[in-house]
Amino acid sequence: MMHLILADSEIEKIPAEIKNHPSVLKNKSFILDASLHHSAMRKIKDWRRRGRPDIVHLFLLISQESILNKEGMLRIYVHTRNNEVIYINPEMRIIKNYNRFKGLMGQLFETGKVPVTGNVLMELKKERIEELLCKIKGKRILFTTKGNKKKIEDVIEEDSVCIIGGFPSGDFLSSFDEMVDEKICIYDRMLPAWIVAMEAIVAYENKFIANRI
Amino acid sequence: MMHLILADSEIEKIPAEIKNHPSVLKNKSFILDASLHHSAMRKIKDWRRRGRPDIVHLFLLISQESILNKEGMLRIYVHTRNNEVIYINPEMRIIKNYNRFKGLMGQLFETGKVPVTGNVLMELKKERIEELLCKIKGKRILFTTKGNKKKIEDVIEEDSVCIIGGFPSGDFLSSFDEMVDEKICIYDRMLPAWIVAMEAIVAYENKFIANRI
Repeated sequence: MMHLILADSEIEKIPAEIKNHPSVLKNKSFILDASLHHSAMRKIKDWRRRGRPDIVHLFLLISQESILNKEGMLRIYVHTRNNEVIYINPEMRIIKNYNRFKGLMGQLFETGKVPVTGNVLMELKKERIEELLCKIKGKRILFTTKGNKKKIEDVIEEDSVCIIGGFPSGDFLSSFDEMVDEKICIYDRMLPAWIVAMEAIVAYENKFIANRI
Repeated sequence: MMHLILADSEIEKIPAEIKNHPSVLKNKSFILDASLHHSAMRKIKDWRRRGRPDIVHLFLLISQESILNKEGMLRIYVHTRNNEVIYINPEMRIIKNYNRFKGLMGQLFETGKVPVTGNVLMELKKERIEELLCKIKGKRILFTTKGNKKKIEDVIEEDSVCIIGGFPSGDFLSSFDEMVDEKICIYDRMLPAWIVAMEAIVAYENKFIANRI
């Protein structure tokens, strides 16, 4: 099984301190989105990296629709800057429309579950990344430009936990020093989270589901 | 060089016959989008598959941001149902916000070039897929569920032209019978266009830029 964690993702509710800013009131969004709330965001800490539900959306569209997930060998988690973990049901089909996706995420942050009754597709828990890591089994591989230059296929094992940053720039907020088995760098420039996810997923497919056709 | 063509893509201007429908007038979009114009679209031919600029957007976000493109070894073309070809400059950064992306595509369909002056990032030409194929060199590989079950790495060559369908369901509108070297099927169920693109890109990277780190 491959576990894939998008860590320190920049997805959150509108912070209280900018709730009444005109650009926030105008857009009626429940989720902070830098493309809508740019002018309000200058008032909050770390504003240059926050409000990026688009990164989460792209990450989910790639990973949930992948061959690896269709084969039942992938588990996805979205960890946020506020130490929440969103558990994604492997059967969930991700909404392709971005605006509707944000609406659904708003509902998740409000109620903690989507849908509220029946087969749960997403669940949000207050949890630090250490707590999540303790629950899942496998070699822990952190993708970071500060890691050792290695090929994914050389480090990945049948039970692996791959950790990718869910932010547009800068470094992880969480500390991973004693918590991971390998820190690797797969390219000499920073890559978007969804590109790292695609490289990790296809590397795992090639190594462990060779006879898929 | 790897050339990647999204063929028969479902991206187009609002068709004349539904221009004055309430759902079209309300949304002020220049590009047909099934998620906005659903009720109006029932009046047009093939309405179940049309109006999918989201597929083009995801395809471009994956391919243009890939390691292969950053290494200068990828060329991207979007062919449409109306026999236009959009040439994408490898240096173009794709706008991540979906609504802004559609705005830019609207401008492209209006003027034929984006931006209108200076370094052209996208250019639209009236062109059938045969005409495009005649201009580019390489082994032509069509991805289709009707193809032979083969692994991409076994058929791909250093100069390759990969053709992927840019529609949500059904079959290609263009005919490829005498025009391609291989028709291959990489999975036993239909996959979204962006997932096929990611498999093709990573297969090419593994085979031809092995020493990338």
